[in-house]
Amino acid sequence: MNAKKLAAEKAVEKIEDHMVVGLGTGSTASHAINKIGERIKQGLVIKAVATSVASEKLALEVNIPLLPLAAIESVDIAIDGADEVDARGNLIKGGGGALLREKIVAFASRRFIVVVDQSKLTDTLGSFPLPVEIVPFAPALALKQLRALGCEPSIRKKEGKEFVTDNGNLIIDCRFARIEDPASLDTAIKKIPGVVETGLFLNTMVSEVIVGYENGETVTRTITAARS
Amino acid sequence: MNAKKLAAEKAVEKIEDHMVVGLGTGSTASHAINKIGERIKQGLVIKAVATSVASEKLALEVNIPLLPLAAIESVDIAIDGADEVDARGNLIKGGGGALLREKIVAFASRRFIVVVDQSKLTDTLGSFPLPVEIVPFAPALALKQLRALGCEPSIRKKEGKEFVTDNGNLIIDCRFARIEDPASLDTAIKKIPGVVETGLFLNTMVSEVIVGYENGETVTRTITAARS
Repeated sequence: MNAKKLAAEKAVEKIEDHMVVGLGTGSTASHAINKIGERIKQGLVIKAVATSVASEKLALEVNIPLLPLAAIESVDIAIDGADEVDARGNLIKGGGGALLREKIVAFASRRFIVVVDQSKLTDTLGSFPLPVEIVPFAPALALKQLRALGCEPSIRKKEGKEFVTDNGNLIIDCRFARIEDPASLDTAIKKIPGVVETGLFLNTMVSEVIVGYENGETVTRTITAARS
Repeated sequence: MNAKKLAAEKAVEKIEDHMVVGLGTGSTASHAINKIGERIKQGLVIKAVATSVASEKLALEVNIPLLPLAAIESVDIAIDGADEVDARGNLIKGGGGALLREKIVAFASRRFIVVVDQSKLTDTLGSFPLPVEIVPFAPALALKQLRALGCEPSIRKKEGKEFVTDNGNLIIDCRFARIEDPASLDTAIKKIPGVVETGLFLNTMVSEVIVGYENGETVTRTITAARS
């Protein structure tokens, strides 16, 4: 049994007619998109907004009606994966490089459901390097200022060249050993001019985490941190 | 006597040989750039980094040797104007639309000198609308979330079309009546995903404010807020 698929499909059950749905990016989110496509074939009526060029393409393949992000004022449910989830429901996302649009959609959602397999769970964030999206024209300064916050930062490369996001920006992957206080770190990183967004998704924007297990079980954790 | 020019020229006196100098943007900063050009003709040896396409052009005209922002790790002195300066040395900048690069350079500078005429002084910020630079693909969400912080936001237009920054982004001008706590507001605005930068320059990044008066006097205020 595919644990990611299981969690994703469980989340898709929450979608109801006439909702605006945020579509995440990555392998787990793709399972959700495929399942939404099946439900549409069975008569579900929704509109959706995609968080990446890749998810938009997949959504069109399975006939999900899409709205442009520019037209959106709110989202009913967003479903997305995560690279790491801590015990309190804070996340690291952005391994796939789509963190900015994912965060815009998650933040705008009345209900943000995170779907992962058990391998993504951790007590404390930080084993997964934290992606930080920066504007492309002052990388040396950003690297220096991120290093001063206590990490080993490196500009993400792909096939020998700097990785460029859907938005024309760069990603710096920041190796912090342990992230004890995600909210303070997020604020500190955002004080650096030129930082567009961080891959820290605080538990204040998360409604539920659905965890899929190899044995076919799913566990739903409801996150109750107040949105500030 | 031109009060802006007076303040700008006073600031340029602080520049010494072999410094890396940050060049601001706008009418007051242009006076500084012209004066730096004169000092270079007289033998001053520096390198500079520009905060906008316009300042880069002017700097080249007056033979200031330029470094690309991408190559910079630190700046010795940056000199720039402001749209509003409060009693504690907090600023609003970005009326000209160059706030992101201006803030990157100011933040990276060991010494950031603000030059204004007396008309820019205020007890409390907020008469001047606060510019906020956002990524271009989700303006409706950003407007909604900025409005929730208590302002009247509007997307900046130029000649009937959306104004686009040097970085390909949009500016939202936010009318707050009074900004009592600039640091908290800056943090709150930066929590909105899709916000790239705000025009609030906190006094923690300002070293001095040089104010020019119509009667030919200048007053230099040293700002001692600790940089966090």
